Amino acid sequence: MAELTFRKAVLGDLSQIVAMLADDELGRSREVVGDPISDDYVSAFNKIDSDPNQILAVVAGERGALLGTLQITFLHHLSRRGSSRAQIEGVRISSAARGRGLGSMMIQYAIDEARGRGCRIVQLMSDVRRPDAHHFYEKLGFKPSHLGFKLNLDLSE
Amino acid sequence: MAELTFRKAVLGDLSQIVAMLADDELGRSREVVGDPISDDYVSAFNKIDSDPNQILAVVAGERGALLGTLQITFLHHLSRRGSSRAQIEGVRISSAARGRGLGSMMIQYAIDEARGRGCRIVQLMSDVRRPDAHHFYEKLGFKPSHLGFKLNLDLSE
Repeated sequence: MAELTFRKAVLGDLSQIVAMLADDELGRSREVVGDPISDDYVSAFNKIDSDPNQILAVVAGERGALLGTLQITFLHHLSRRGSSRAQIEGVRISSAARGRGLGSMMIQYAIDEARGRGCRIVQLMSDVRRPDAHHFYEKLGFKPSHLGFKLNLDLSE
Repeated sequence: MAELTFRKAVLGDLSQIVAMLADDELGRSREVVGDPISDDYVSAFNKIDSDPNQILAVVAGERGALLGTLQITFLHHLSRRGSSRAQIEGVRISSAARGRGLGSMMIQYAIDEARGRGCRIVQLMSDVRRPDAHHFYEKLGFKPSHLGFKLNLDLSE
């Protein structure tokens, strides 16, 4: 693959990032891609960008086109004698860039950021409907040691 | 059960909280309970306490004795049109207080905090070796829709 740049996202990347979130089997129905981009996304971007414990990252290819995105959250806990962890969410790769090892490089980038901040654990949840993703994370050394439970507050009361 | 108080933890609670983290099948080997408490825990407490996106909570019973603890982290994401989630970790109940419904009340407290901040999802990971915990979360309405993957950075290189 040609030159790749891994970096923190800036506001100008936002419409390309949202397009990647929408370009996904499960994400298609959940996102709204428009021009201009919805204020909801701008407001969420600003919350993430101003939080020192969050990194919204992108990988850019030739001519600056974005090929992938992921988000890292640094979590501080008391357990294990006070430890920090990195949690990865929102991993997406543009359909044109899939199948070329970019995903592994992006996760490696997140692991390097986690090491740089002294994290002992990198963790993520993956939808049970994504078996290919599970195989991918296991190949990178992740262990499926937990179940991920979610409670939807829109539906419950 | 007698009067219960759900509140944010203060530094004076720390040794009791660490004792609860250690009073657990999986936690026993991971924590160090000492007097005075290890500086690692104090430093971790200060990181959590100063972060507006984290709540370390405790529940106190009669005479202020702590009966349980949990930690809530508020996560901001772009996906789903920019949404916030609450993640629960470090749920522990002192052995003397188990089996009396305190766990459900603690999770309900976390759900209320999540609603108060406009979160759409409450999520958590539970070790596959805790089947009783899985049953507990399912009874509260949580769905085991994800796998939780972890990579230990102490061991990998």
